[in-house]
Amino acid sequence: MNKINGNLKQRFVQPEELYSFIGKVVTLQGSVYKIRLMSGFAFVILRTKRSMVQCIYSQEFACFPLENIKEEACLILTGEVVAEERSKTGYELRMLDVEVLSSPVEESPVVINNKCMETSLETLLDFRPITLRNEKERAIFKLQEGICRGIRQFLTAQQFTEIHSPKLVYAGAEGGANIFKLDYFGGEAFLAQSPQFYKQMMVGVYERVFEIAPVYRAEKHDTSRHLNEYISVDFEMGYIEGFEDIMQMETKLLFEILEFLKTEYTFELKLLNVKLPAITEIPAIAFTEAKQLIAQEYNRAITDLEDFEPEEEKLLYELIKKKTGSEFVFVTHYPSKKRPFYAMEDQENPDVTLSFDLLFRGLEITTGGQRIHNYEEQLNKMKRRGMNPEAFESYLMIHKHGMPPHGGLGLGLERFTSRLLEQTNVRYSSLFPRDMKRLVP
Amino acid sequence: MNKINGNLKQRFVQPEELYSFIGKVVTLQGSVYKIRLMSGFAFVILRTKRSMVQCIYSQEFACFPLENIKEEACLILTGEVVAEERSKTGYELRMLDVEVLSSPVEESPVVINNKCMETSLETLLDFRPITLRNEKERAIFKLQEGICRGIRQFLTAQQFTEIHSPKLVYAGAEGGANIFKLDYFGGEAFLAQSPQFYKQMMVGVYERVFEIAPVYRAEKHDTSRHLNEYISVDFEMGYIEGFEDIMQMETKLLFEILEFLKTEYTFELKLLNVKLPAITEIPAIAFTEAKQLIAQEYNRAITDLEDFEPEEEKLLYELIKKKTGSEFVFVTHYPSKKRPFYAMEDQENPDVTLSFDLLFRGLEITTGGQRIHNYEEQLNKMKRRGMNPEAFESYLMIHKHGMPPHGGLGLGLERFTSRLLEQTNVRYSSLFPRDMKRLVP
Repeated sequence: MNKINGNLKQRFVQPEELYSFIGKVVTLQGSVYKIRLMSGFAFVILRTKRSMVQCIYSQEFACFPLENIKEEACLILTGEVVAEERSKTGYELRMLDVEVLSSPVEESPVVINNKCMETSLETLLDFRPITLRNEKERAIFKLQEGICRGIRQFLTAQQFTEIHSPKLVYAGAEGGANIFKLDYFGGEAFLAQSPQFYKQMMVGVYERVFEIAPVYRAEKHDTSRHLNEYISVDFEMGYIEGFEDIMQMETKLLFEILEFLKTEYTFELKLLNVKLPAITEIPAIAFTEAKQLIAQEYNRAITDLEDFEPEEEKLLYELIKKKTGSEFVFVTHYPSKKRPFYAMEDQENPDVTLSFDLLFRGLEITTGGQRIHNYEEQLNKMKRRGMNPEAFESYLMIHKHGMPPHGGLGLGLERFTSRLLEQTNVRYSSLFPRDMKRLVP
Repeated sequence: MNKINGNLKQRFVQPEELYSFIGKVVTLQGSVYKIRLMSGFAFVILRTKRSMVQCIYSQEFACFPLENIKEEACLILTGEVVAEERSKTGYELRMLDVEVLSSPVEESPVVINNKCMETSLETLLDFRPITLRNEKERAIFKLQEGICRGIRQFLTAQQFTEIHSPKLVYAGAEGGANIFKLDYFGGEAFLAQSPQFYKQMMVGVYERVFEIAPVYRAEKHDTSRHLNEYISVDFEMGYIEGFEDIMQMETKLLFEILEFLKTEYTFELKLLNVKLPAITEIPAIAFTEAKQLIAQEYNRAITDLEDFEPEEEKLLYELIKKKTGSEFVFVTHYPSKKRPFYAMEDQENPDVTLSFDLLFRGLEITTGGQRIHNYEEQLNKMKRRGMNPEAFESYLMIHKHGMPPHGGLGLGLERFTSRLLEQTNVRYSSLFPRDMKRLVP
């Protein structure tokens, strides 16, 4: 019998510490990202966990032939750290010896080591397992990790409890036909469109909850902003005075995410040349008012009274940016018809709900609002909509047994990332996107 | 147009701060957990985000009749904080006035405010939306949050990158028939049994990755340790020297989780009377050796040469605990036949793999091991198993284009929580468990 202990030993030098090893011989691990042949020597860029290390190969000091290493080979490299003013890092690593742990059997079918990936979106995604090795591609998802860390740090400090709700469900929360169905041991199950029912249930337990998890929409939209599986950042909070409390919490959340990125992800922000939006205050405008404003300013006819056209979202963004400087805008008081059965209506005007969307750089990234907490009110609204309350018995338990006034929101992680990076397609911010035509890799 | 700012104001006093308000009148929010009538007065326990607050109702100081408040009503309560030696907290809250925000329309069909839930597991789960309001029930999932926070804190410090891989997939990673299938826009999709392929792909990108997300097993097992949807904690790391590196990382991870809980979740640990296991070293024993040892010590016949029976797992736990004091045991070198096609075989004995399970208090909570990183080796193993490599083209891209030696593991979050709390059924540690018979709530 052996004993396994937890005394982790660092085997090699970390790339981030190299500067303090100038004049010394070190060993480190990584993949060969790029070999650039110069006259009489070569630059070898080593890809490590987060950063790239510039190495110099020359027969003057290396004890192995350059042919021994290929791009994408995995190495254990021994080299001398030498001060070098012309290097951005202030040093370079002279390659003395390598141990090749593995070597690719074929050349890459697509060039992955240029500054940017110069391929079509389709090729980028077809070869995702290797195109993600590109420096900028991987920085996108490192930054996305940072966004999630920022969210968790902030919401935890605000006393939200993180939960895990099931994605195999008995009923859809959002209604409609856009739901994936599967055989479940002879019965029928659905894939959750949102954790709506569960996060509301959990408000009765912890007052404030959040979840970061996949949700599923069987939408047949083949657009630059739809995914059929995406990561939804959901929070829900009790004891609110109005739906403005939710918007305020989101405003602060977004502010804190960006502050977190500035501190912990400067490397990726710089590499991707991210223009961070300013968030001090976010303008809020009622849906009808926004519709009219766009119609007036751009001399457009209003064709859809109950929803924005994508073009209108972009115009609203331009308009608000011009008027206020903000790249975000809350649109409030959406028509009741367009909102789910659990949305609370405005007492003064039941045709509209106490709800909002948040648009960021012209794209809806959040939907939120206050929910009905009164049992009779919820029951009546369901009946008015021709729904069968018995099918929602377990959900209605919370209304029956006491719920505080509450509300919350869902933020699409890929959409937020995508607008932050000003990408032309949300797929660029999904590690392995799922759409009508894509299930592989 | 309004402006929403992020200046969050704390509306009321936080329950955790009450002690510093002795002698003062405060306002706070919460649900009425329990009303205990005494002679001439009543104890009213208020449930807040994390803790319970003991309040005193008496006509002497309250300006409202006790009948106004019911158990599970949501309140805004104004009261005077009075020093009280007999109270555990050192104070009590005298109720002066309340605003009732909502009141239950029916009495709870199941008693939820006793020390422990005294119901069958079935009733507990049928009424989950309200039974989770029980003090100890909710503490389980608060503690589970703490486990996840501990994991993230440790793995992030160890330079693992957190990823989100898709759960709608084109092929199962674990093989076999235990996979949910669904119609995907006229084609076929599956629910991921594990993020295996994706986390390996991402090792080629970031060297070290982890994910905490749901996975799906269509197993027809109706046992106390199986769930059809569960949260899998997965990590995968490159540049390992052997599969022992993975076990060592897990040993340290487990140690750090418990340290984190001791610091941040003392309240729940105490409430649930958790006996934390000691983790300094974890014994590791080869599968065949373990089989023989159990057979010898307990005078049992070995019937299944390739797997443990549940009874054997329990006996091994007893045996190891007796011999070493450890409540954990790694079992290594599982038969190749029983491990998936990506498992690396022992060079000296290809009948066994460089893999392990971790048993905790008699239950398997982790499966892990080293993976094949060489393209030819992986291809040959697939062919030997009668698999069609073309069906795994995108997965094999990583082997073709350079992968470091690597390995990882999957830890079942509910199983770990459940053994930590010494529960008799893993369902107690799943917020809304999914099994063959249960999809609701």
